[in-house]
Amino acid sequence: MLERNEVKALLFDTFGTVVDWRSGIANEVDLAFTKYGIAHDPHDFADLWRSLYQPAMEKIRSGNRGFVRLDQIHLENLVSSLETIGVEPAAISDADIYRINSAWHRLPPWPDSVESLSRLRRHFFIAPLSNGNIALLANMAKAAGIPWDCILGAEIVRDYKPNINVYLDTVDVLGLHPRECMMVAAHNDDLEAAAAAGLRTGFILRVGEHGEAQRTDLCAERAWDVIADDMVDFADQMLMPITAAEDVV
Amino acid sequence: MLERNEVKALLFDTFGTVVDWRSGIANEVDLAFTKYGIAHDPHDFADLWRSLYQPAMEKIRSGNRGFVRLDQIHLENLVSSLETIGVEPAAISDADIYRINSAWHRLPPWPDSVESLSRLRRHFFIAPLSNGNIALLANMAKAAGIPWDCILGAEIVRDYKPNINVYLDTVDVLGLHPRECMMVAAHNDDLEAAAAAGLRTGFILRVGEHGEAQRTDLCAERAWDVIADDMVDFADQMLMPITAAEDVV
Repeated sequence: MLERNEVKALLFDTFGTVVDWRSGIANEVDLAFTKYGIAHDPHDFADLWRSLYQPAMEKIRSGNRGFVRLDQIHLENLVSSLETIGVEPAAISDADIYRINSAWHRLPPWPDSVESLSRLRRHFFIAPLSNGNIALLANMAKAAGIPWDCILGAEIVRDYKPNINVYLDTVDVLGLHPRECMMVAAHNDDLEAAAAAGLRTGFILRVGEHGEAQRTDLCAERAWDVIADDMVDFADQMLMPITAAEDVV
Repeated sequence: MLERNEVKALLFDTFGTVVDWRSGIANEVDLAFTKYGIAHDPHDFADLWRSLYQPAMEKIRSGNRGFVRLDQIHLENLVSSLETIGVEPAAISDADIYRINSAWHRLPPWPDSVESLSRLRRHFFIAPLSNGNIALLANMAKAAGIPWDCILGAEIVRDYKPNINVYLDTVDVLGLHPRECMMVAAHNDDLEAAAAAGLRTGFILRVGEHGEAQRTDLCAERAWDVIADDMVDFADQMLMPITAAEDVV
């Protein structure tokens, strides 16, 4: 039974949970590809670029590479993805490479994110616990109006989720106990690792993250503390009055 | 000549510049001292406690101690200060020691801070560049309504101002050039170090920080890029329209 009164901080995964990375990246890639006459589906390119994300972080998680920010990983993977589709990266100006890469700083929130987070912020401390770097997450928040209380995540603890110390060190930064923190994500593996670190868990269904072909995270795979159909439902569940029924359970 | 259009981020010292630490600490110390029947002037105690701040950080700046958060330094200095005035720390409950120590998380902003920062935030990226730890600064912002775009400072770069790498590493976190960042402080030594790192500098006069006995930082000791009488004046200067006169200089 979740003791909601014990939860003080809500820590949100961002890519896929709070923002729609696939549409955001595809839109900005589309602009660039049009400018350079590159005939390649921008959503397919977004998927290709994102597919290199986990392998790149795995090198750092496993200790085979020192910590580098996600902006750097994105840049390396952008160059690699362009090569994969037969585009010479040098054919694109440095300014445009930078502009495409910084599209991750301007990702659009899902339509229910900002209002729900604003409601939650009145009762909880809210922060991203994301693999994005500080500037990426802060620029994203400023552009989209996401009202975080502070920016947390990989860069502060210098490691990438789902390594368990990322959750534990973040809780330590806040000066809280793991049980006072809830990881909120649209991804079962993120919640699995957070639960192993002793955090509470909240699942938000985002069946559109990967477009129509999505095959993962189509449901909650465990009895997470909160399971919600969307961010509004999550906020409703976290903010509903404690009922008499809950008191006597 | 300051090119204001080049400045993208305003980085604020907090203790003394944005918040009134001396009144805030004295108020909470007064409550605790009354509860425990301790007859000691709370402002004097605030000054005593704060006087141990620089020596404690110096051990870390000089490499004689590994990085610890300011919350931990404050706790050690609180215990030491109580002993100095003849109070046995063990006579105060752990909960009350914690409460007194966390007074730094609830410091009141100077009356002109929140509105001026809200104005500045519409045109600049704003963040604290403080020796406070992340939780301290984030809790302070949440309690006081300070609208930071993110929390930066000592804990992220794991060193204390005015070591120069604190400024340089913070600029690097933001992905900016030093000249695109302005350090804003009520302390000449903070601006001296920031200028040495290549940042722009903004001085805000705060003659009440140390009470009536204040003898330092009663004026700008160098021709900082901006010199302001208070936070409203600083915001006015940063936000005034570029004039024809400025264009032709």
